[in-house]
Amino acid sequence: MKRYYTTDEWSVIEEGFDPTFQEASESIFSLGNGHMGQRANFEENYSGESLQGTYIAGIYYPDKTRVGWWKNGYPEYFAKVLNAPNWIGIAVRAGNEDLDLHTCKVLSFRRELNMKHGYLERSFIAELKSGRQLQVNTRRFLSLAADEIGAIRYSVRSVNFEGTLELLPYLDANVVNRDANYDEKFWEILETGFKADNAFLRMRTRKSGFEVCYSMNCTAEINGTANKAKMQPVQRSGYAGFKIETGINASDEVVLYKYVAVLTSLDHKPDSLVDISIDTLMQASGRRFDGLFADHAVQWDEKWSHSNIVIKGDPEAQQGIRFNIFQLNQTYTGRDQRLNIGPKGFTGEKYGGSTYWDTEAFLIPFYLSTEPDHVSRNLLLYRYKHLDKAIENATKLGFNQGAALYPMVTMNGEECHNEWEITFEEIHRNGAIAYAIYNYVKYTGEKEYLAQYGLEVLIALSRFWRQRVNWSDVKGKYVILGVTGPNEYENNVNNNWYTNRMASWTLRYTLESLDYVMREHPMQYQQLVNKTGFRYDAETSAWNDIIKNLYLPLLEERGIFLQQDGFMDKEQRMVSELSPAERPINQHWSWDRILRSVFLKQADVLQGIFFFEDEFTTDTIRRNFDFYEPRTVHESSLSACIHSILANRIGEVEKAYELYLRTSRLDLDDYNKEVAEGLHITSMGGTWMSIVIGFGGLRIKEGMLSFTPNLPRKWKYLSFIVNFRGRVLNIGISEKETEVKLLKGDTLQVEVNGKIVNCKL
Amino acid sequence: MKRYYTTDEWSVIEEGFDPTFQEASESIFSLGNGHMGQRANFEENYSGESLQGTYIAGIYYPDKTRVGWWKNGYPEYFAKVLNAPNWIGIAVRAGNEDLDLHTCKVLSFRRELNMKHGYLERSFIAELKSGRQLQVNTRRFLSLAADEIGAIRYSVRSVNFEGTLELLPYLDANVVNRDANYDEKFWEILETGFKADNAFLRMRTRKSGFEVCYSMNCTAEINGTANKAKMQPVQRSGYAGFKIETGINASDEVVLYKYVAVLTSLDHKPDSLVDISIDTLMQASGRRFDGLFADHAVQWDEKWSHSNIVIKGDPEAQQGIRFNIFQLNQTYTGRDQRLNIGPKGFTGEKYGGSTYWDTEAFLIPFYLSTEPDHVSRNLLLYRYKHLDKAIENATKLGFNQGAALYPMVTMNGEECHNEWEITFEEIHRNGAIAYAIYNYVKYTGEKEYLAQYGLEVLIALSRFWRQRVNWSDVKGKYVILGVTGPNEYENNVNNNWYTNRMASWTLRYTLESLDYVMREHPMQYQQLVNKTGFRYDAETSAWNDIIKNLYLPLLEERGIFLQQDGFMDKEQRMVSELSPAERPINQHWSWDRILRSVFLKQADVLQGIFFFEDEFTTDTIRRNFDFYEPRTVHESSLSACIHSILANRIGEVEKAYELYLRTSRLDLDDYNKEVAEGLHITSMGGTWMSIVIGFGGLRIKEGMLSFTPNLPRKWKYLSFIVNFRGRVLNIGISEKETEVKLLKGDTLQVEVNGKIVNCKL
Repeated sequence: MKRYYTTDEWSVIEEGFDPTFQEASESIFSLGNGHMGQRANFEENYSGESLQGTYIAGIYYPDKTRVGWWKNGYPEYFAKVLNAPNWIGIAVRAGNEDLDLHTCKVLSFRRELNMKHGYLERSFIAELKSGRQLQVNTRRFLSLAADEIGAIRYSVRSVNFEGTLELLPYLDANVVNRDANYDEKFWEILETGFKADNAFLRMRTRKSGFEVCYSMNCTAEINGTANKAKMQPVQRSGYAGFKIETGINASDEVVLYKYVAVLTSLDHKPDSLVDISIDTLMQASGRRFDGLFADHAVQWDEKWSHSNIVIKGDPEAQQGIRFNIFQLNQTYTGRDQRLNIGPKGFTGEKYGGSTYWDTEAFLIPFYLSTEPDHVSRNLLLYRYKHLDKAIENATKLGFNQGAALYPMVTMNGEECHNEWEITFEEIHRNGAIAYAIYNYVKYTGEKEYLAQYGLEVLIALSRFWRQRVNWSDVKGKYVILGVTGPNEYENNVNNNWYTNRMASWTLRYTLESLDYVMREHPMQYQQLVNKTGFRYDAETSAWNDIIKNLYLPLLEERGIFLQQDGFMDKEQRMVSELSPAERPINQHWSWDRILRSVFLKQADVLQGIFFFEDEFTTDTIRRNFDFYEPRTVHESSLSACIHSILANRIGEVEKAYELYLRTSRLDLDDYNKEVAEGLHITSMGGTWMSIVIGFGGLRIKEGMLSFTPNLPRKWKYLSFIVNFRGRVLNIGISEKETEVKLLKGDTLQVEVNGKIVNCKL
Repeated sequence: MKRYYTTDEWSVIEEGFDPTFQEASESIFSLGNGHMGQRANFEENYSGESLQGTYIAGIYYPDKTRVGWWKNGYPEYFAKVLNAPNWIGIAVRAGNEDLDLHTCKVLSFRRELNMKHGYLERSFIAELKSGRQLQVNTRRFLSLAADEIGAIRYSVRSVNFEGTLELLPYLDANVVNRDANYDEKFWEILETGFKADNAFLRMRTRKSGFEVCYSMNCTAEINGTANKAKMQPVQRSGYAGFKIETGINASDEVVLYKYVAVLTSLDHKPDSLVDISIDTLMQASGRRFDGLFADHAVQWDEKWSHSNIVIKGDPEAQQGIRFNIFQLNQTYTGRDQRLNIGPKGFTGEKYGGSTYWDTEAFLIPFYLSTEPDHVSRNLLLYRYKHLDKAIENATKLGFNQGAALYPMVTMNGEECHNEWEITFEEIHRNGAIAYAIYNYVKYTGEKEYLAQYGLEVLIALSRFWRQRVNWSDVKGKYVILGVTGPNEYENNVNNNWYTNRMASWTLRYTLESLDYVMREHPMQYQQLVNKTGFRYDAETSAWNDIIKNLYLPLLEERGIFLQQDGFMDKEQRMVSELSPAERPINQHWSWDRILRSVFLKQADVLQGIFFFEDEFTTDTIRRNFDFYEPRTVHESSLSACIHSILANRIGEVEKAYELYLRTSRLDLDDYNKEVAEGLHITSMGGTWMSIVIGFGGLRIKEGMLSFTPNLPRKWKYLSFIVNFRGRVLNIGISEKETEVKLLKGDTLQVEVNGKIVNCKL
């Protein structure tokens, strides 16, 4: 396969310009800093195909639901990631001609995303229709040190042109969302203006009423000295910029520095937003471009110091995993409990709302192992704060007495998805919420979290499951009817093994947590009883009864956990029997045919086995793996990683590597021809897991870090850094040995290949 | 219950004007003549809530599909019934004031739908803001004798007003569909003009390209003599009318006659549409209003002479059944094989496309028994002509070799529904297509239909079922997975008894029909083999294998046919346990809760038992009835009628009557508060069945008409007229006796309560 982007350890590089890749590259070269994000749109005007995308964390629009056929219980709105006003724009005019890479000749072009220090560079020589040639070099970044600040250095050198060069840096709120359901305008413009030498825009989102202020400050140099040319304010509704006109000769260079502050009413009082924005901007621009960049780069060094992975012998894998770590760190920094991680992060509009069960199942492990504990804790608190809404959501669907159903997709805790088989039926998401609490406590050892927050959520989840089961006389068991499991290639099934297992495990874990809190934190327990109206005897005995009597479908003669009732009635075909022309089936088969086929979109029973691995023998894991893997088409980006980890678990390292390859460069190589819409941010956590948990064999055993690594043949060396209970450790794995080095923190015992090792500084 | 409309044997009457009922009344008082239909919108301007509705049979618009989430296989378009240009409009102005019943005082108001002769009358006295009072009397009809003609007599009498009265009869193509998915305009205006004394409009539907021409001719009288006042042409784009100004004194009466011709390119060449339209119009207006009406009334007399039902002792039931027969006859006259019967007929926009399985299951019995055979035969030929499209539809979903899946909803043979659980999964509709052929042949005795058309359809249907089953190793049977049965309160289920039964019966009936055609029509058989590539040995042996080995879910210990796999895992609740506040559940429960509940929307197993009643003992029918009836919420208008017929079948006549009451006046009493959207035209066939097949006990036994009547206690007398193989018979049923009278045709033997009776003229 010919790769479009140059392979490099620390960078993604595009050499030469192909407009058919422009939207894809806009996704790939995206920048973000947790507070905001920006697709790699060009600064100068571009009239070709482009998905303009600027996103501000937590700022959304409740777009009126669009459906073909309304079902009772659907939410009125789908909270959408908003395309925010454009802050990067710099129009360039040479003589009477616009610089637009779509209409001029591109003599050379190079774009680089530097992942080590988080910036985007671009250089090109363009020849305008008249023959005038300009050489442009740009660098931009969204500061990780001052997360409300973006900065751009934009240099234009005349190759052969003499005359007037005009640069027009601007802010522009006249933007739309491509995926708006009814082509509504999402932004209302409140103010457009100038204060001192700064331009600013103040906007409000319609309906949701978030206020946002952009302010901009620019300086220019000619051939290295400050430009004396006046900056002419240019203004229209929702648009504010500065026109800079200079006469230039061949080989003259004009450099423009553009600083922008992006502040929102989530962090500041609306009525002082403009003033604070300009203060923040002045402070930043005072540091100048180089100073700001230095502060930013230090922060990236710090990030990498506890999240880096090194793979030797496989440059594509090296680039792939760094790309994933980089994008995850750009998307979520853990500073704000109100934020979460959307499927596309800050790289596209698709899938709307920011939070799916992906966070709990695929991202918390990453942040747990690569960031200080508060980062994953904040992700947990995000859900804790949405508990009331989750209870309200369950109430709307007919549940009561404090039962909670967390939304399938959300921004602010309210459900915003609208496909009945998902919205109402993919209830296993509630299990992932519980699992994340368990995983957090297990990894960090912070059991007190249960007393403070965790148990309250667990009780509400258990109340949900209690009401969601019903007694089947014919089975003599409790059953869970009408669900969709993780495998969305079956809908409205009965007794999905994964869902039932998550339900009974949640009840069990709630009971355990209850015991712990009653015993160790009696005061907090009493507060919880008062708050939730918890009735110990009635509720725990009902839960125990369900744990004991919940039906779990089995294929006993083969020792298989059965995906759902009736699964064996399906025609038992193997993925290997499918012709390449039919793949992926979700693009070639009608939906009903997919549904009634045996093929799984993603790990389902195996997802459950992954979660509760300790409870199964290797033989059981192998049997289930051998049964489900040949039936799985991996048409979800969340699938192959789980299969890869389990393949490692049963010692099939080359199979694990083959599966790993499906996820490692999903976006960089654009497997599914959809990267133009944005990156698969959440599945990047899965890729990380398949390296660290899969090949690295990271586990927590009785509170101790443990590693049983397996290197695929191709890899000469693998190292990764993990955070664990205040320590930072580097695990270096070669064919011969596994070396665990403590980089930070107190002495620690870890298990390596079954042996206890002491790690000191 | 207070009834809004006055009960009358032959009329529906509204006394007094309540604007909150206006949209409902517009549906109830609708007129139609098979070629077109008109809601009871006012002629004069009305600024209150109103659903303007004019519909022309066969003229539709392919509205771009709207969904929340696209599924592979969805059709691009939903063919919509079009709201056609307004032909009834007559603006009225007294002095400087508009007549608008929404803004003036209505001193008296009466509206009557005369079902005996198919016309709408209205009389009212309105007081304008100035105190001017006008008395208006109108009559209008859509000619059943000349079905391209509509006529209105509109009389205005001044009560106390002296001054200028202005009448402005017009045609107006500036109309919209309320249910347009994207608020598109559906009509393109081609020509607006006048020829001789006639106004005309020529329009074309966008995308579908149907051309339609309206022409209008008017005359006016003052106090009984022709008005000399000039008719002033008034014209703007898509609007053409005549202004008539007259000075009047108190008690003067102006009468306007408005004649309109509505022609389409379905029946005429587009380029001569205007000329033919005006010819047609001139011919009609030459008959004058009274002459036209007389021709029309004769046709209605003729209709009633072979479809009337008389119920004594129950005036509401009498009015209800006449209303249903009347509406069915207004909707479909059987003259055109390209037409069918939409769920709302010509009374509203909802549900788009014109044809559902309702036609085959609920309407063909009505037309078979009340109209000459060609009427139901034309409904069968409608499907025959769509066979290629049905094969294409199946091909899109992954079937091959001539398998056909008829669309769930269609106008022109193409599927236009877009809910996966219905569109792709409610495949039992294919069974109804086969059943209609069987039913037609059984009723008419015209077995040759099989050779000419029927068998070709049956083969394509059987080919579908063969591919749609799969072998289950665990069951050792063929199964049918992933379907939705008639009960749409469960989706994507496995082995729906009804669907499986329809499948295996279709295979069996195809084999029988094949035998017959091979034996009796060898030439036609050979042609069919050539046309369809039928391979006798391979295909019939596969079909026989499926017939023998198709799984049918049973609850053996209770002798019940089981609705679907896993049905008994549901919590077994009874409808009687539901609180009234929860009813109907489709308005009070979330969709998932409805799905996993035991409650049935409509007859499902019982629908199958109804179809194949002869194959079951009374005991079996009773057991299944007793099991399903208490679990059925009858939230489909197609449900209670089937239960009512089966209740009669097992001798529970009062239960049958109770069930019958749910359908008999569904629209007249607006049970579901939705009649404003249009009438439930197709369920009217069910109501007719519950009387004639239910209480009348009509059956065909070995080609002989048979009756075993049961009168509910309240009814003193029931009579109904049926058509049967060229005869027309009146069946009169009283408590004492059942009298069968031959009204037309050759001597015939019929069975009455098990005894053979000879019927002569």
